[in-house]
Amino acid sequence: MEEVIGYLQNNQEKYVEELKEFLSIPSISTSKENKNDINNAASFVERKLKEAGMNRVEIIQTEGHPLVYGEWLGAPGKPTVLIYGHYDVQPVDPINLWSNPPFEPVVKNGKIWARGATDDKGQMFVHIKSVEAFFKIMGSLPVNVKFIIEGEEEIGSESLEKFISQNQSMLKCDAVLISDTALYDKGIPTLTYGLRGLCYMEIEVTGPKRDLHSGSFGGAVANPANVLAKIISKLQDKNNKITIPHFYEDVVKLTKKEKEDFKALKFSERGFAKELGVAELQGEKGYTTLERIWVRPTLDCNGIIGGFTGEGAKTVIPSKATAKISMRLVPNQDPQKITKQFEKYVKSLAPASVKLKIKAIHGAYPVLFPQDNPATLSAAAAMQKAFGKKTIFMREGGSIPIVTTFSKKLKAPCVLMGIGLNSENLHSPNEHFDLNHFKLGMLSSAYFLNNYSL
Amino acid sequence: MEEVIGYLQNNQEKYVEELKEFLSIPSISTSKENKNDINNAASFVERKLKEAGMNRVEIIQTEGHPLVYGEWLGAPGKPTVLIYGHYDVQPVDPINLWSNPPFEPVVKNGKIWARGATDDKGQMFVHIKSVEAFFKIMGSLPVNVKFIIEGEEEIGSESLEKFISQNQSMLKCDAVLISDTALYDKGIPTLTYGLRGLCYMEIEVTGPKRDLHSGSFGGAVANPANVLAKIISKLQDKNNKITIPHFYEDVVKLTKKEKEDFKALKFSERGFAKELGVAELQGEKGYTTLERIWVRPTLDCNGIIGGFTGEGAKTVIPSKATAKISMRLVPNQDPQKITKQFEKYVKSLAPASVKLKIKAIHGAYPVLFPQDNPATLSAAAAMQKAFGKKTIFMREGGSIPIVTTFSKKLKAPCVLMGIGLNSENLHSPNEHFDLNHFKLGMLSSAYFLNNYSL
Repeated sequence: MEEVIGYLQNNQEKYVEELKEFLSIPSISTSKENKNDINNAASFVERKLKEAGMNRVEIIQTEGHPLVYGEWLGAPGKPTVLIYGHYDVQPVDPINLWSNPPFEPVVKNGKIWARGATDDKGQMFVHIKSVEAFFKIMGSLPVNVKFIIEGEEEIGSESLEKFISQNQSMLKCDAVLISDTALYDKGIPTLTYGLRGLCYMEIEVTGPKRDLHSGSFGGAVANPANVLAKIISKLQDKNNKITIPHFYEDVVKLTKKEKEDFKALKFSERGFAKELGVAELQGEKGYTTLERIWVRPTLDCNGIIGGFTGEGAKTVIPSKATAKISMRLVPNQDPQKITKQFEKYVKSLAPASVKLKIKAIHGAYPVLFPQDNPATLSAAAAMQKAFGKKTIFMREGGSIPIVTTFSKKLKAPCVLMGIGLNSENLHSPNEHFDLNHFKLGMLSSAYFLNNYSL
Repeated sequence: MEEVIGYLQNNQEKYVEELKEFLSIPSISTSKENKNDINNAASFVERKLKEAGMNRVEIIQTEGHPLVYGEWLGAPGKPTVLIYGHYDVQPVDPINLWSNPPFEPVVKNGKIWARGATDDKGQMFVHIKSVEAFFKIMGSLPVNVKFIIEGEEEIGSESLEKFISQNQSMLKCDAVLISDTALYDKGIPTLTYGLRGLCYMEIEVTGPKRDLHSGSFGGAVANPANVLAKIISKLQDKNNKITIPHFYEDVVKLTKKEKEDFKALKFSERGFAKELGVAELQGEKGYTTLERIWVRPTLDCNGIIGGFTGEGAKTVIPSKATAKISMRLVPNQDPQKITKQFEKYVKSLAPASVKLKIKAIHGAYPVLFPQDNPATLSAAAAMQKAFGKKTIFMREGGSIPIVTTFSKKLKAPCVLMGIGLNSENLHSPNEHFDLNHFKLGMLSSAYFLNNYSL
């Protein structure tokens, strides 16, 4: 085992160079223009899995973006781990706020800077490298391993969802290992046992059939931008509670133990506000910030557009205004049920003077895992060994839609061994990834595979 | 006089070709990229004034876009008319909704289609041509005439405002003649005796210093897009009354005579709604549509943008969201006073969790003119003669900021002899101008110059 660890430590520089190559591919899954890049990213992963020593490595075409699969089942009697990751990335706008181009990775201050660095290329890469180390040193792995790497995580994982449903025996495993979450803080080994779900909607309000002069027509017709603003404003009350009828009905209450565990983390609200550059935090009345992010549902307008948005003035009443609204869900909220509640409520808010189109863009179920299964215990010990500190358990505000599917269809616990940081600008300009965590992630992965075989 | 009219009628086709040339120049005043086109449009007007026979034609440079001036003072003892127009035009977005390119004018169905056709290139052009006809036929004009044509009407007329203040004796006149408003309906000769004013503002709400992942951070910070929506929603109540404190204090009430005159126009609310493509009209409770447009102040969001507005989904909390909000004012509201009231109220609506920037983009005073001065009476008779129908008097919802300045500084009545139609898509894609009105406008202009000399 020491040799495996030594091998990983000695090859750091080479791995960073390989990661750079991976990060140079603009595999933005939501953008049709980047379809070739998506294919290139999938091919890159295929090649790296083959080089690592995995068997049966293949690209699986889907109706959407391709999946990459690889397996090694040479440890009979030992458990099987399914390792998941995604090679697709978020869009890069606003591009002008990036200090260096998002797909020209650079190493600076012990971090690697590029779109996808922490979400999820850098994180998923550690497992390919830990497997490689075992093959190079031992010629085999301590447990059976399958990889399934997708290219649609940022747009709803539709193809993988379908693939899992139709290929449960191929993906059969005892645990799923995923690195696509965050450490609680720099250098603190962390396992995440709960994720929020998601319900992402689009509202389009149409008024007059063309843009109108706001002088000649102002006052006579409903203005779609004003109507849209009114609709959005009515989705939350003054205590920042969501006003959609029945919205909170299925929400599982925070346990006393969780409340205490969270409190013990001594989270600094002031430090958090400062890091985000806001004078004051704001959220649902009656909850702490960690509770608001981890265990309470929320609603955000992710984008809004309508009318004249250039420099200066244009006196129009826009014909149309559109907003993207998403809700983060918590156990046991059901995104399909929430979608219907949202649609019904928004329809009730729109006057007859406008036309309304509501579209469900994507959804994800929230999840919670027990902390005491063998895979999770192995992972906690592995991270403790790699980081030299006791592993803490936390929840996470983001969603990994596919995690619920793994959990439900494969009936296996998911180990969320995230090694990113929430401050690493995932989904924002200047995304980056701590290279020390990159190294500790590889070691954690290797220790985990070993621990889990014992 | 008959010969003058005959000359104008015989030269229609030539004038349409000249207008096409004028409309081919993309003189968008708000766009820095079009500075050359602005200069070209000014030169075009200069050339046409010279060709018409005006004296002392010159381009006057300003800190903004140039003015074009021309005069002919060869009728001592007769009144002096100052003719105003503007050669600048509105932006063209959304460009994809234009049936033909906005700066490639085409004639179709008796109309000319291009940006600026009705607002204001086509309308101002009729006066240049009526003057030309007098010079060609009579060698002189029946009254003294000055032209002042500007290039900043769509962005607030700042340079002309300044020029008028500093050159009152140069611009001295007995009446100002302006064609930049609309006929009440197709073929109905109309004079406009009141215009609404304007107060155009921009609100920028900034939250976290960067875009944030709405999963990892959602619920913990104020979302600028949600806050902006809330602010906008609070500017009007459920009866579509504006909620800014003291907003209605200076509003002059509609007279009983006006109420009756408006009613006599038999305006079809149903036809209006149908033409705009809306199922229902919507406006301030307690007023008819004409009253809402002509004599009541209004508030519209002219544009809004923030966060991810592309195709699909991006789960961000935007760092910033911006809206353009304008209010149409009526006598005796003061745009400067309204600006302050707006700022104070909007500030009171923003939580401490965001930063707020409020910018006044431009403003205009509302105006009302008496209907019985000699210039207006001459104009009413002129239009009646040209159109063959009795001239009606109406008010207009739009603003021509400069009209107040003419009225105040030059102490002269303004004759608003508009020959456009509000349905001609001014400020929208597919702007056009009725060529029959173009002809009748020239005749009206010629009859007016003659009548006013008597």
